[in-house]
Amino acid sequence: MARNASLSGFPELLPEERLVEQHVLDTLRRTFELHGFSSIETRAVETVGQLLRKGEIDKEVYALSRLQDDDGNTASAAKGDPNQLALHFDLTVPFARYVVENAGYLSFPFRRYQIQKVWRGERPQEGRYREFTQADIDVVADGVLPFRYDVELALVIAEALSALPLPAFKLRINNRKLAEGFYRGIGLTDTAGVLRSIDKLEKIGAGAVAGLLKSELDASDEQAEKALALASIRTEDTSFVEQVRALGVTDELMEEGLNELEQVIAAAVKSAPGSVVADLSIARGLDYYTGTVYETVLVGHEQLGSICSGGRYDALASKGNRKFPGVGLSIGVTRLVARILSQEFAKASRSVPTAVLVALADEDSWSEAQEVAGALRARGISTEVAAKADKFGKQIKYADKRGIPYVWFTDDDGAHQVKDIRSGEQVAADPGTWMPPAEDLKPAIVVA
Amino acid sequence: MARNASLSGFPELLPEERLVEQHVLDTLRRTFELHGFSSIETRAVETVGQLLRKGEIDKEVYALSRLQDDDGNTASAAKGDPNQLALHFDLTVPFARYVVENAGYLSFPFRRYQIQKVWRGERPQEGRYREFTQADIDVVADGVLPFRYDVELALVIAEALSALPLPAFKLRINNRKLAEGFYRGIGLTDTAGVLRSIDKLEKIGAGAVAGLLKSELDASDEQAEKALALASIRTEDTSFVEQVRALGVTDELMEEGLNELEQVIAAAVKSAPGSVVADLSIARGLDYYTGTVYETVLVGHEQLGSICSGGRYDALASKGNRKFPGVGLSIGVTRLVARILSQEFAKASRSVPTAVLVALADEDSWSEAQEVAGALRARGISTEVAAKADKFGKQIKYADKRGIPYVWFTDDDGAHQVKDIRSGEQVAADPGTWMPPAEDLKPAIVVA
Repeated sequence: MARNASLSGFPELLPEERLVEQHVLDTLRRTFELHGFSSIETRAVETVGQLLRKGEIDKEVYALSRLQDDDGNTASAAKGDPNQLALHFDLTVPFARYVVENAGYLSFPFRRYQIQKVWRGERPQEGRYREFTQADIDVVADGVLPFRYDVELALVIAEALSALPLPAFKLRINNRKLAEGFYRGIGLTDTAGVLRSIDKLEKIGAGAVAGLLKSELDASDEQAEKALALASIRTEDTSFVEQVRALGVTDELMEEGLNELEQVIAAAVKSAPGSVVADLSIARGLDYYTGTVYETVLVGHEQLGSICSGGRYDALASKGNRKFPGVGLSIGVTRLVARILSQEFAKASRSVPTAVLVALADEDSWSEAQEVAGALRARGISTEVAAKADKFGKQIKYADKRGIPYVWFTDDDGAHQVKDIRSGEQVAADPGTWMPPAEDLKPAIVVA
Repeated sequence: MARNASLSGFPELLPEERLVEQHVLDTLRRTFELHGFSSIETRAVETVGQLLRKGEIDKEVYALSRLQDDDGNTASAAKGDPNQLALHFDLTVPFARYVVENAGYLSFPFRRYQIQKVWRGERPQEGRYREFTQADIDVVADGVLPFRYDVELALVIAEALSALPLPAFKLRINNRKLAEGFYRGIGLTDTAGVLRSIDKLEKIGAGAVAGLLKSELDASDEQAEKALALASIRTEDTSFVEQVRALGVTDELMEEGLNELEQVIAAAVKSAPGSVVADLSIARGLDYYTGTVYETVLVGHEQLGSICSGGRYDALASKGNRKFPGVGLSIGVTRLVARILSQEFAKASRSVPTAVLVALADEDSWSEAQEVAGALRARGISTEVAAKADKFGKQIKYADKRGIPYVWFTDDDGAHQVKDIRSGEQVAADPGTWMPPAEDLKPAIVVA
C-alpha cells in the first residue's frame, strides 16, 4: 500500500502485503470459529428497496446496470426503482435479509461470522476506501435475544483484536437506552435528534453541539449542559453508574440502560482489563441500534476513526409478527491492514509460500525433479521446480530474490543434497524424510 | 442450494453448505501454496476501457454508477465512456492489468493464485450464475515464459481437482498453434473464424459446423472435411501426433503446436493417468489464448460444461515494448460446489464449528463457565457457553439441534463432567487437559 492505487479508493496489495492480510483474516476466522460462529456469505448485491428499508441511508451506494441491455442500448438505473440492484455497503443489512429468508433452515439463536468486501461511493481519503473488507460477528434470535449476548460479543471481539498485530485498542461502549432515557428524563423528547447532535461531539466540539441542541432542538441552557455532562462521562470500570446518578435524572429506560451497560463493562473489564471503557458520548449516528453500542479506536491512532463498531438492533429484521433481534460487531479489516502495513506493525518473512526450489542439473531431469517435489509436498513443504536448467548460480538467484530458503540438488547418481542459501550450508537429504525447521516451513508474520 | 435464490443467479448457502464450500476453497488454497503460488486479490471493478482492451467482450458486464451523483440526481452510465467502472467478469484480465501496474515490484516469472467472486449479467440457468467464485492460477513472465509452465500448470490443476470431493474428471487439452497451423496448411486463412465455428461443435454438431465453414468462410468440401477430421481426434496418450500426421498437412506453426501438445500430454498422462486427454476440438471461443488451451469436464456431468478452463496467452499484457506472456487456469468454484451439494458428493458432519457447549447450572455461573470455555479454546476446541441457565434438558437440546457433540457441566463444588450427547456417556474431565477425539474437534467433510 506504499504505492498509490491506480483507481482512487480501491487499494490492491503486493504478494508480501497480502500475506499480512491473510494472517489477519485467518486469525479472525480462527477466533470466531473457536467461539462457535458459523461462516456465511451473502451476495454482493441487494435491491435498493432492501438497502433503503430502514429509511434513508447515509452511505453512498453503487447501483448496477447491465452495460448493454437487451435492446443493445446502454442501460441506466430507473430512478426510484426499488428493484434496482446495488452493491451492499455493509454486512448487517444483507445479514438481516438472509436471516428472514432462511429462518426456516436456521437454528436460533443463530451465531454467524461473515468476512466480505463492501462498497461505498464515498470520496476516498486516508482510512476511507470505496472497496474494503469487513469481518462481522452477529447473534440473532427468533423472538427474544438474551441480553447476555451483548456481553459475550464484547469479549469475543476483544479477544479477536488482541490476537492481531496491533497496538493497544480501546473498546468504547455505551447504551442507547441509557442516553435516550436520560434525554427524556431532562425533557428532550426528540431523542434521535439529540443523539445525532451528540454524535458530532468529536468533530465539532462541545460548544458547537450545545449550539445545535439549543437552535435545532429548542434545548434550554440547562438541558444542553446536562446532555453534554452525560456525554463527558468516561470510566474504565463501572463507576460511570454513580456519575450518571449524580446528575440527578430519573427515568425507567435510563435505569434499564444503566443496568445493561454495567453488566457489559463489568464482564469486559475483567476479561480485557485496560482495553474497555464506558464512554457515554458514543452515539453511532443514523444506525439501527437500540441498546448497547460499541466503537473501537487504536491507541495513538485515534484519527484513523473506529476500527470496529456495532451494537444491539432489536428491529432490523422481521417477518410478519416474528421479530429477529440481534447484536453484532464489524471489524474494518482493510483499514487495519493498511495501518499495519504503513506503520510496519508486522511483515511477512518472505514474499512466497515456497520453502524449497528443486534445481535442474539438465533439461531431462525435470520429470525426476517433479517427483522430488511431490515427495516434499506430501509432507506439507511448499516446493517449486526450476523451469529451466540454467546455471546453478542463476537458479539460486531465483530462490534468493524471493526469499526461498532452500535449494535442492540431485546429481547424476541420484544423490540428493539440500542447501540453505542463507548460510550456504549444504547437506545430504532424503526427499522422503527431510524437513526444514518449523520456522522455515511457511512465511511467518513477524511482529515489530 | 436446495432452496431457490431470492435473486435469480445469485446463489447463497446455508451454514452447513458453506462448510463444504470452505473445504473446497481451503483445499485449493493449500494445493496452490504447496506449489509455490502467491495469493493476490484485485479490486472488483475495472474501467470499461480496460475490460474492452482486447476487443469486443462476449461476456455481459455490470456497469456501476453512484445511486446519487453529486447533484443529487440518479446517475447513469455515460454511453461509451471508457472510464465508466464495471464489475470484473473474470480474473485474468484484472490480473494482466495488475501485473503491468506492479511490474516494478514483482519477481518474474510471477506465480499467483487468486480466489474471488466475478459477475456476469447473463441469463441465469443451471450451472450459470450472475455472481460466482473463480479460483485461478497463472504464471506470467517478463519477456519470455518457458513452455514448461504449460506442462506444470496442467499437473498442478490435476492435483487440485483430484483433492476435491468430486467424481472423475477429464482435463481436455489442445493447442491453438496446432489448429491454426493446420487450417493455414489446408488453405483456410481466417483461422480465428475457423476456431469460432469449431467451438460450436458440441452445441450444433459436425454437419452444421461444416455448413458454417462453407457458407461463412468459403471452405471447400474437402477443407471442411479436413478441419472436422482434425477436431475429431481424441487420444489419452500422445498417439494424436500420428493421427494428425496421417491427415497429410504440413505447416511450421502446426509442427510447433504438435510438439508442445505432445510434451503437455506426455507429462500430464504420467502424473494423472486416465484424467487427461488430447482433444483437438477444444477452441475456447473468443478468448485471448495463443497456444495451449485447457478445458475440464466431470465424467457423467458433461452437461455442466467446463469446470476448469484456461490456456497460454502471449499478448494479453504489455507495457511499451515489454511483453508479459502468461499461462493459467481458472476453476469454476461455485459451479463445482453447487454440484457437490446437489449430488451429495460430500456433506458436513455438523452445521456449526462448536465441539462443546458449556452448560449453566445457574445464572451466576456464567462468568466461571467463560473460564472453562477459555481453557478449552486455548487448546483449539471450539466452545460456546449457554446464554441462559435453562433446564439442562433444554440446554442439551440446543446442542443436539446443532450437532454439537459434547456438553460440559460444572456442579456446585466445582467438579467438572463432560457428556457425549450422542452416546449419553458422561465422564469427569479437567478443563485444562480434556480433549475430544480428533474426529469431533472440527466439522468433518464426509465424502459420499
